[in-house]
Amino acid sequence: MTAQGFLLLLELVGVFAFALDGALTAMRSTHLDLFGVVALGIVTAVGGGIVRDVLLGELPPATFRVWYYLATATGGALVAFWGHRLLARVSRPIFVFDTVGLSLFAVTGAQLAVDAGADAGQAILLGGLTAVGGGTLRDVLVRKVPSILTGGLYAVPALLGAVVAVVAPLLGVSGGLAAFAGGVLCAAVRTGGALRGWKAPRASLTSPEDLD
Amino acid sequence: MTAQGFLLLLELVGVFAFALDGALTAMRSTHLDLFGVVALGIVTAVGGGIVRDVLLGELPPATFRVWYYLATATGGALVAFWGHRLLARVSRPIFVFDTVGLSLFAVTGAQLAVDAGADAGQAILLGGLTAVGGGTLRDVLVRKVPSILTGGLYAVPALLGAVVAVVAPLLGVSGGLAAFAGGVLCAAVRTGGALRGWKAPRASLTSPEDLD
Amino acid sequence: MTAQGFLLLLELVGVFAFALDGALTAMRSTHLDLFGVVALGIVTAVGGGIVRDVLLGELPPATFRVWYYLATATGGALVAFWGHRLLARVSRPIFVFDTVGLSLFAVTGAQLAVDAGADAGQAILLGGLTAVGGGTLRDVLVRKVPSILTGGLYAVPALLGAVVAVVAPLLGVSGGLAAFAGGVLCAAVRTGGALRGWKAPRASLTSPEDLD
Repeated sequence: MTAQGFLLLLELVGVFAFALDGALTAMRSTHLDLFGVVALGIVTAVGGGIVRDVLLGELPPATFRVWYYLATATGGALVAFWGHRLLARVSRPIFVFDTVGLSLFAVTGAQLAVDAGADAGQAILLGGLTAVGGGTLRDVLVRKVPSILTGGLYAVPALLGAVVAVVAPLLGVSGGLAAFAGGVLCAAVRTGGALRGWKAPRASLTSPEDLD
Repeated sequence: MTAQGFLLLLELVGVFAFALDGALTAMRSTHLDLFGVVALGIVTAVGGGIVRDVLLGELPPATFRVWYYLATATGGALVAFWGHRLLARVSRPIFVFDTVGLSLFAVTGAQLAVDAGADAGQAILLGGLTAVGGGTLRDVLVRKVPSILTGGLYAVPALLGAVVAVVAPLLGVSGGLAAFAGGVLCAAVRTGGALRGWKAPRASLTSPEDLD
Repeated sequence: MTAQGFLLLLELVGVFAFALDGALTAMRSTHLDLFGVVALGIVTAVGGGIVRDVLLGELPPATFRVWYYLATATGGALVAFWGHRLLARVSRPIFVFDTVGLSLFAVTGAQLAVDAGADAGQAILLGGLTAVGGGTLRDVLVRKVPSILTGGLYAVPALLGAVVAVVAPLLGVSGGLAAFAGGVLCAAVRTGGALRGWKAPRASLTSPEDLD
C-alpha cells in the first residue's frame, strides 16, 4: 500500500467514525427521523474536510470531487441508524467514535495540508481545524455548546497529534508511522483527560455581570 | 429570453422568496427590529448562493460581483417588514416562501454548477446545498434546530429537483424546461410531504443515555 | 510608518480587542475553562478576517500565512483570562472591546479588500462582513442570538465606517486618515446608539402564529 493509499484509508475510517458519532448524536439529542440522522451524520463526517479544503483553496473540496467520502459518510449514518442497539454495547459510543474521528482527522488533515503545499505551521493548524470542524458544526446544528469550548481536552490533543504527524516526517520518520503515532497520542491525551478528569483552570468571577 | 436570462430570473425570484421567508421568520421568532429583519432576510436569501460559489471556487461570490442579488434580497426583506399583514393572508406564508425558494435554488444552483464546470454528481449536490444553505444559516442564527435535521422532507425534495435539472438536459430536454420540471417536482414533494404528514422512520431508543 | 504598516497595526489592535471581547464573553456566558476561553477568543478575533479572505479568494487566509494574527489573538485571550479583574474596571468591557474591534475591522477589512482588487461596493460589504463576522461566530458558539440580528446598530455603523474608509481615499484623502475617520464614525454611531437607546422600528404582529 502506498503512503497516499494508507492516508486515504485512515481518512475514510475517520469519516466512518464521525458519521457514526453524528448519527448517534442526532438520535440521542433530538430524536430526529432517518433523514435528519443521515444529514447530521454526513455534516459531522465531511464538514471538517470541507473547511480544510476551502481554507487551502483546493476547490471544489475533495468531498465533491470523488464519490467515496459521501458514500462512506452515508453508510456510517445508516449503520448507526439501524445498528444503534449493537453500537450501544460499546462503552460510551459517542465519545469513542468522536475520539477515533478526531485523532484520524488531526493527522490526515495535517498531512494532506502538507501535500497541498502548506508549510509546517499551517499544516498543524489545518489538521487541528479538520479534526474539530465536523464536531463543531454538529454541535451548532443540534444547539449544544461545542466541545472545543467546553471540553477542555478537545482541540489540544488534536493539535498535539497534528504536530507529530507533521514534524516526525521532517525528522525522517515515514509518513504512515508518524500519522499512526500522532493519532495514538491524540486519542490517548483525550481519553486520559476524560478518564482522569484532567481540568484546565477556570477564572473565578465574583460578579460576571460587570463584564457586559 | 436566453437560457441564461431565464435561469437568472428564476434565481432572483428564489432570492426574493427566501428574503420574505427570512424576514418573516425574524419577526415571528424573535421580534427583531427593522435592521435585524433585513439582516436575517439577506442572510437567508444569499447564504446558499455564497456557499455554492465558495465550494465551486468562483470567488468573489456572485452576490459580491453584481448588485442585483443584494438589492433583491433587501427589497424582499423590506416588503416583508412593511407588508406582513398582507403576506399573512397567504396560508402559512413562511412555509410557502421557503418552498418556493428551496425549489428555485435547487434547480438554479445545480444548473449554475454545471455552467461553472462541475460534473453531474457535483452539480446535484451543490444544487441541494444551495437550496438548504440559506435556511440552515437562518435557523442557526435564530437558534432553531434547522429544517434539514427535523423536517424529514427538506433536503430530499431539493436533491430530487436538482437531479431533474441536471439529468434532463443530458437527455436532450432544454435547460429551461428541465429547471421548471425540477422545481415543480421539488415543491410538490415537499408540499405533499407536509400536507399528508409523510414521515421517515425514527429510531426507537430504549435508553438514549447509553449512547454518550 | 508606511500605509500598509499602519493598516496592519490597526488590524492587530482590532484582533487584540476582539480576543479580549471573545474571551470575556466565554467567561461571562458559560464559565468556560482556560482552553474554552482561548478558543472563543481566537474564533472571535480571527473569524471575520478568515471569512473575508475566503470570499476574496485569498487562500490560504492571512491568519494561516503569517504567525502574528494567531499570536495576537492568543495573547489577548490570555490577558483576558488572567486580567479579568483589571478589565472589569473598564465600564462595560465587553461592549467597549467589541466596539473597538468592530470599528477597526470595518475600516481595515474594507481597505484590505480594495488592495486585493475588490471594487468599492464589494469592499464596503466585505469590510462590514469582516467587522460583524467574528462576533457572529462567537454568539452562535455560545448560543446567543447574534448582535447583527438584535442589536439594531451593529451592522449599520460597520457599513458606515467601511464607506468612509473606501470612499474618502477616492476623493484624495490619505488611506490612514480615511481609516481613522471611518473607525471613529463607526464607534461613535454604535456608542451613541447604545447610550441614547436609538431604536429601529419594530413590526407589530397581532398574531405571529399566522406566519408559519
